[in-house]
Amino acid sequence: MSLRIIATGGTFDKQYDPLTGQLVFGDSVIPSALARARITVPCQFEPLMAIDSLDMLDSHRQQILAACERSNERHIVVVHGTDTLRETAMVLGQAKLPKTIVLTGAMVPYRIDESDALFNLGFACAAATLCEPGVHVAMNAQVFPWHAVHKNRSAGVFEAQ
Amino acid sequence: MSLRIIATGGTFDKQYDPLTGQLVFGDSVIPSALARARITVPCQFEPLMAIDSLDMLDSHRQQILAACERSNERHIVVVHGTDTLRETAMVLGQAKLPKTIVLTGAMVPYRIDESDALFNLGFACAAATLCEPGVHVAMNAQVFPWHAVHKNRSAGVFEAQ
Amino acid sequence: MSLRIIATGGTFDKQYDPLTGQLVFGDSVIPSALARARITVPCQFEPLMAIDSLDMLDSHRQQILAACERSNERHIVVVHGTDTLRETAMVLGQAKLPKTIVLTGAMVPYRIDESDALFNLGFACAAATLCEPGVHVAMNAQVFPWHAVHKNRSAGVFEAQ
Amino acid sequence: MSLRIIATGGTFDKQYDPLTGQLVFGDSVIPSALARARITVPCQFEPLMAIDSLDMLDSHRQQILAACERSNERHIVVVHGTDTLRETAMVLGQAKLPKTIVLTGAMVPYRIDESDALFNLGFACAAATLCEPGVHVAMNAQVFPWHAVHKNRSAGVFEAQ
Repeated sequence: MSLRIIATGGTFDKQYDPLTGQLVFGDSVIPSALARARITVPCQFEPLMAIDSLDMLDSHRQQILAACERSNERHIVVVHGTDTLRETAMVLGQAKLPKTIVLTGAMVPYRIDESDALFNLGFACAAATLCEPGVHVAMNAQVFPWHAVHKNRSAGVFEAQ
Repeated sequence: MSLRIIATGGTFDKQYDPLTGQLVFGDSVIPSALARARITVPCQFEPLMAIDSLDMLDSHRQQILAACERSNERHIVVVHGTDTLRETAMVLGQAKLPKTIVLTGAMVPYRIDESDALFNLGFACAAATLCEPGVHVAMNAQVFPWHAVHKNRSAGVFEAQ
Repeated sequence: MSLRIIATGGTFDKQYDPLTGQLVFGDSVIPSALARARITVPCQFEPLMAIDSLDMLDSHRQQILAACERSNERHIVVVHGTDTLRETAMVLGQAKLPKTIVLTGAMVPYRIDESDALFNLGFACAAATLCEPGVHVAMNAQVFPWHAVHKNRSAGVFEAQ
Repeated sequence: MSLRIIATGGTFDKQYDPLTGQLVFGDSVIPSALARARITVPCQFEPLMAIDSLDMLDSHRQQILAACERSNERHIVVVHGTDTLRETAMVLGQAKLPKTIVLTGAMVPYRIDESDALFNLGFACAAATLCEPGVHVAMNAQVFPWHAVHKNRSAGVFEAQ
């Protein structure tokens, strides 16, 4: 068993820029999250892109699909913005790759107090290890199939659909 | 699907006492960790005991087994000290309950910088959701069967045995 | 000796809103910062307003001045956004109140990793305790007089002028 | 104006050792605290020793006194364990050096949630900048003279004596 973790940006990876007062992308926080988690499973980290999921175009989703296709690891976690996480899950799901792909994200950036990011990353790593091949969304301590999940934006949680 | 999370103490739940300068047990940190994780899956939290796993006696392990037996939830996470986590896993494993029981812990307390606790809790919740009935140990982003795992104390990691 | 701490908003007090992904104002973080600091000096906390200092109008500065005037405490810390901290310092300085008023802020919000907020609050409390009556700006571990300080925006630090 | 910050150990600098489960000393946290504080005042950091203040002998206090004597900076912060902070303050105070020396510490280590360390460091840096030459203890947002302070151990605070 080995894992690939693909970073695409999203709230999980947003960091504060003291000069502009904005939340922006820098080097991904995921390597330091994995070090902290003391993981011993073989794991490749791939910083593919760093964008807000609201800014994601079809071309970005095709890039993510291509990264999953070329991955030597058959257990993949994609860290993604939550707003269009479902759309990317659909693109990956329809491709029917013979791999277990788990998309996750965060409602609060890793670097901000009371973030859910580290919990979600742990949950997603286990789901990517244990689920059948296919595409799954892991949020709120639940695993949803790619074709039956949506984000309830007013509640800030993912729900079965 | 619903989860039960049983706290038994261990490093995960150690907190600093400013008056004595010692790491001690107080109210479990797990409810605040679960709130932070924004879980929506039905989940019962049971603070069963709060002890160092080095201080755990057979009677404590029998209490943990009894808690798993009487649990209405069939997916159970036991948060436990790492030093004798394997011994408790053996007691639970030999009982062959028709439930999925996942033991986890932490190498660094939840309340201390760079703790692995939240990652491990997320990983264990997914493992408890997804694994077959039986007893499993979830540490270092790996799932080990109860009868084939040990803690490498000099490296501070769990390994297959 | 007793202190008054007046909150006006600014980066120090910005908090992340998971639903909008924005940094916004909620209840001030200052009471929890003071509890954490274990202060024993008598201290009144006054949440006067919660705005970005770039949005501050003359009327806001007059409100801050009025709060300093009516303060029974003669040692006052004003927590303020850094962008127009100097402008408010000038309004307060020209009023020549017989009180020690120290303005401080933060380059990174209190609730975000590696924030300078708690250091600055500690520094400002000491400056408000120890400085002569007058208006001072405390940032970057320095005390500047109100009429001779500016923010170097490209470096993100306050400098003597 | 320039500062010297002398580390001697104490709760402020205690760090968790995952292998032993103990709070121990490693590289001082003070350089990272100062970086985070974005200080621009010239500042020398001197890691003199790293011991629990309960283990401090007369010879250690003489070393601290010698470090203060040879310091080119006339504004000095000594970060010290709280249990015998007063004893060291007395040794330094009786030496009547023509320098401003401020001793501070923490009730909760810097690396543990809700630590007072960063506040105290900020407070002490301001006190070392602003106080008259002499030896002072800065804790709980108060400045105490060296000869009239004691730690109330049951309350965990410093008090005038």
